[in-house]
Amino acid sequence: MTSINKDISFFFNPKSIAVVGASPIAEKLSNVIINSLRDIGFTGDIYPVNPKYKSIDEMKCYQSAKAIKADVDVAIICVPASAVLGVMEDIVAKKVKGVIIVSAGFKETGKDGAEAEEELKKISNETGIRIIGPNCLGIFDNISKVDTFFILRERAKRPPAGGLSILSQSGSFAGTIMDELSAEGLGVARIINYGNRADVGESDCLEYMAEDKSTKVVGLYIESVDNGKIFIEAARRCSAKKPVFAIKAGRQETGASAARSHTGAIAGRYEIYSAAFKKAGIIEVKGYSEFLDACKVLSKQYHADGKRVLIVTDGGGMGASIADACSDFGLVVAEPSQGIKDALASKLPPFCAVGNPIDLTGSVTNDNYVMALKEAMSEYDAAIVMVLWGPPLLTDGLIKMLKAASVGIKKPVIICSPGGEYSQKRKKMFEEAGLPVFSSPEEAVRAAAILAKMTVIKLMY
Amino acid sequence: MTSINKDISFFFNPKSIAVVGASPIAEKLSNVIINSLRDIGFTGDIYPVNPKYKSIDEMKCYQSAKAIKADVDVAIICVPASAVLGVMEDIVAKKVKGVIIVSAGFKETGKDGAEAEEELKKISNETGIRIIGPNCLGIFDNISKVDTFFILRERAKRPPAGGLSILSQSGSFAGTIMDELSAEGLGVARIINYGNRADVGESDCLEYMAEDKSTKVVGLYIESVDNGKIFIEAARRCSAKKPVFAIKAGRQETGASAARSHTGAIAGRYEIYSAAFKKAGIIEVKGYSEFLDACKVLSKQYHADGKRVLIVTDGGGMGASIADACSDFGLVVAEPSQGIKDALASKLPPFCAVGNPIDLTGSVTNDNYVMALKEAMSEYDAAIVMVLWGPPLLTDGLIKMLKAASVGIKKPVIICSPGGEYSQKRKKMFEEAGLPVFSSPEEAVRAAAILAKMTVIKLMY
Repeated sequence: MTSINKDISFFFNPKSIAVVGASPIAEKLSNVIINSLRDIGFTGDIYPVNPKYKSIDEMKCYQSAKAIKADVDVAIICVPASAVLGVMEDIVAKKVKGVIIVSAGFKETGKDGAEAEEELKKISNETGIRIIGPNCLGIFDNISKVDTFFILRERAKRPPAGGLSILSQSGSFAGTIMDELSAEGLGVARIINYGNRADVGESDCLEYMAEDKSTKVVGLYIESVDNGKIFIEAARRCSAKKPVFAIKAGRQETGASAARSHTGAIAGRYEIYSAAFKKAGIIEVKGYSEFLDACKVLSKQYHADGKRVLIVTDGGGMGASIADACSDFGLVVAEPSQGIKDALASKLPPFCAVGNPIDLTGSVTNDNYVMALKEAMSEYDAAIVMVLWGPPLLTDGLIKMLKAASVGIKKPVIICSPGGEYSQKRKKMFEEAGLPVFSSPEEAVRAAAILAKMTVIKLMY
Repeated sequence: MTSINKDISFFFNPKSIAVVGASPIAEKLSNVIINSLRDIGFTGDIYPVNPKYKSIDEMKCYQSAKAIKADVDVAIICVPASAVLGVMEDIVAKKVKGVIIVSAGFKETGKDGAEAEEELKKISNETGIRIIGPNCLGIFDNISKVDTFFILRERAKRPPAGGLSILSQSGSFAGTIMDELSAEGLGVARIINYGNRADVGESDCLEYMAEDKSTKVVGLYIESVDNGKIFIEAARRCSAKKPVFAIKAGRQETGASAARSHTGAIAGRYEIYSAAFKKAGIIEVKGYSEFLDACKVLSKQYHADGKRVLIVTDGGGMGASIADACSDFGLVVAEPSQGIKDALASKLPPFCAVGNPIDLTGSVTNDNYVMALKEAMSEYDAAIVMVLWGPPLLTDGLIKMLKAASVGIKKPVIICSPGGEYSQKRKKMFEEAGLPVFSSPEEAVRAAAILAKMTVIKLMY
């Protein structure tokens, strides 16, 4: 399958958007989409299209796309599946550059739907009109202020602008991750959910992301790829410029069958995907939680030079949990050299256990943390700093001190801040200070392991 | 090592507590302990002991334990390590039943500390005075209203009363878990942190827990055990009556070395522990996060009869993530029979994918969830129900409906509620309704796997 027009960049900089199947009824997804576009602050023109209405939400409503006099860059199609092919005739006549077909009811529903989807592919091939979808949320774009997601903002908040972009075959995955990122205060550039992938897919998007200056790191959710060779080439071009991480859903037989009934994708053997990721310089993550860990840690733009992790803690048992998790995830928790041990012992109070972990105990002060980090980090690639807030001498000032120390050290410092209400507030403060922070030993270690994998990928280029 | 007096039950029902080394200074841990005892509502007598003061916090302060005229059940010793043996003479003279030695600076600090700790053991053996500690937080007990934890309540909240008891060698683990449980609103009976285990250890506590009517489920954190044979016997007696789950810290060489410098424990080879857990009917959990999952799911007192999991979701990609995680954790995600499929297809809207997962899609209603569960559960041992709140027809009423359905089904229904602010509020509502609820596919699946392991243990008895 080749498209006449390979470009998809207009989706990320449209001057005008038509909403086909627009409705004034609040529950209708077309209405949610119009509100999403307004709420994000889309500065271009919005053209509602629906022969049933003269105006919608105080905007003129057009009888057809063709009836719009001005140029239309993108049309969002929200009509029932059975009406989509009819609408496409109007779209072709209007010479719209690209469409986002939100409507479900295509390949994922069986034979009839698959045939209709083949028709969509044919139209795209013959006319050069690029198609995102069907069966998708489309685009959330903090840079060009486009939001076609039909999830109410009160139910799924939109994250602030930042350098992370997400490409996802699954809408529920894209929407849920978006909502989690906003809760974490993590910045997002663009999220694209291409659903059934009648035309635009992971490879087009990766090509675009490779050149996209707003995107600093790319997360990818796939159930399948359209063309393995093209995918690996596109991913390599992207991963040479910025970190790319990916999850392959449907790893086992059961997951694969779940994915099939979902976007109609035939999910291939997992091992092939895993090998392709390696070849393409993609960091593979397994599962939703690890995907989220990768979003968090890679958004902070750290670079680890290897697998040697220093653990600093004020609670011995919790430090041991981190050490155990490090072993599970292939990280190395080596003892510091005798020289470092002596230096630590001379500068830290006598009750501290000087090793790896460095256990500062419940008598810890803010200064002890910074001292331990500065003294020992020369022998390690990354640090996991566990802060338990029980010790009475610790103050909130520690947060800024650790941030300053991590900047000085120029190596990743990952914070682990487990616990209840008091600790969760401090976790937010660590986030706001720009440090990667996690709630459990396992999450913090998984994040460190992701940074260590980045080292291997850097050696590829 | 045999004690004259094997009983430790008085620790969990003391009529009077002496605080030796009491201080009026707010930062001193002895002062925090007196406040902890008052805040939890200890109804017995509190006797501060310190020759330096005549009164502390408006309570008479005694020059020595011996100077207290009334009987003293338990003494909490908060003096520096170097003064502990001196204090013990006074304690022996007073014929206190048991002491909790909070002070650090014993076996965990090296040879001198280890010798002092041997002295403590000798005193316990010769006099029958039971010792919890040294180097510990002691007891948090919601049943008898005893709280010797020296962590400020503003920094680590205390959980409500409930059926979960925790035994932990590590203080930081015990304190952090306590704080997490309170944030989750999970009910706790007793938490015991025995630290260096000069006398009272995991086996004494398991014996007590076996008979303790307030305790319905026991979680255990160990770095080592004192005596393998006695441990297995005690654990078997306990696990025959109620679920026992355990984490072994120091699984790998690095973790083992971390544990050693921490409580002075020599952590043995992990495989031996893992085998001992099996023999003792203990569910092994690996890592802090899974320990927390076990606390949550086993507190709800569910029983799964096997590994067959039904997945119900309103988002295909997120459902596939659950299916993948099930495979990773050894659970079976089998398709429903044709009969069930036909029944589901006839009762659910045509856009739903009828299989496993059952994908109710973004057009889902509250009723669809209940229908899917009721229709399909006869062929499964447990259900994981993912609720993504984006779909506009879902209302908060779903929470009570799912609770009612789970009661009717009499099989575990585990809720997965990922996402940001809106979803996190609903997660709390699921918790309040008494359903086990988790934030990620991996956590929900880990919880289901823990319930499946319970099946194997039940077959032992």
